[in-house]
Amino acid sequence: MTAAPGTKTTRRGRPGYDLESVLRVAVELFNERGYDGTSMEDLARKLGITKSAIYHHVPSKRELLRLAVDRALDGLFAVVEQAEQADGRAIHRLELLVRGSVSVLHDRLPFVTLLLRVRGNTDVERAALTRRREFDRIVAELVAEAESDGDIRPDIDPATTARLLFGMVNSLIEWYRPRNGADDIVEAVARVAFDGIRVRPS
Amino acid sequence: MTAAPGTKTTRRGRPGYDLESVLRVAVELFNERGYDGTSMEDLARKLGITKSAIYHHVPSKRELLRLAVDRALDGLFAVVEQAEQADGRAIHRLELLVRGSVSVLHDRLPFVTLLLRVRGNTDVERAALTRRREFDRIVAELVAEAESDGDIRPDIDPATTARLLFGMVNSLIEWYRPRNGADDIVEAVARVAFDGIRVRPS
Repeated sequence: MTAAPGTKTTRRGRPGYDLESVLRVAVELFNERGYDGTSMEDLARKLGITKSAIYHHVPSKRELLRLAVDRALDGLFAVVEQAEQADGRAIHRLELLVRGSVSVLHDRLPFVTLLLRVRGNTDVERAALTRRREFDRIVAELVAEAESDGDIRPDIDPATTARLLFGMVNSLIEWYRPRNGADDIVEAVARVAFDGIRVRPS
Repeated sequence: MTAAPGTKTTRRGRPGYDLESVLRVAVELFNERGYDGTSMEDLARKLGITKSAIYHHVPSKRELLRLAVDRALDGLFAVVEQAEQADGRAIHRLELLVRGSVSVLHDRLPFVTLLLRVRGNTDVERAALTRRREFDRIVAELVAEAESDGDIRPDIDPATTARLLFGMVNSLIEWYRPRNGADDIVEAVARVAFDGIRVRPS
């Protein structure tokens, strides 16, 4: 919507800002300064609009956080659902889950970064942590199932294997910067995780 | 040293607090609240001593940070030195570096946690980041050398392999809690990183 010139809604209806762009800038600030360290004032300044223009799109900072972590979690749980509906052995479903998660990280990196730094100080953060734990539980169960199928190495405790696997996946938030499509990074993580970095005599 | 009862040095010389224990509690607070979010007042309160009692051990908060990140970095660079002096192929030296680093994480977890969260706002933090980048460069070079020796998979860009490798190692700060010796976790990381989680037909 574009406001007619000279009306009081000029700034409010400033073209180029919709909820999506307000959310993206909010997530950028939350990642830079922390959620607690970012005020709606900071966000308004960064966007170059008034606070009331932000409230036109979203009722609170809390709601911005909720939308942001849900963007990450909904992506990850869509992947869980795909993996759970897939046929085949647990290791195959686990590989789908790893590949899909890397793809979500590629597509929604700032949102997943925020999710993984959430510490649980507010109700929104605690709800996000609960869903994260649910995700981790699903991974751990798949690893345990694949191990009892004889497909995953039995010499390491499955809980540790699951942690190392997603430790590697989640480390992407520290160093990965998406440039092209997700294919290269999905392939790299899946190969290293499942088959290791060493060349084996074939 | 124990102060004689009734003298003014009672709190200052409070038994049980030496520089090492002040440092450990400081690192715990820095990890909980951030370096910027922790004051010497907070530290004094946590220790149950006065600020001047802390200054008896260490001249500044900055110096506590320097001691803490150096504890982590000195451990990691001692491992680099051992790896560089070892004989054998690059992949062997790389494995020594990975195993040694996991062992340092086990032994000095709160210090490495602090190091990996440093963002570079102060001169001490910037110096730590410079040493971290030097460490990462050494890892990347070893990976590249091992790849040109034909020992590391050539289908992934060596820089990505190096990042994923230490992404997995560094993820330990997020979930690993040392209980027993370092052997189990060193073995688990080395096996998963070099040979992957999948069982291969032998």
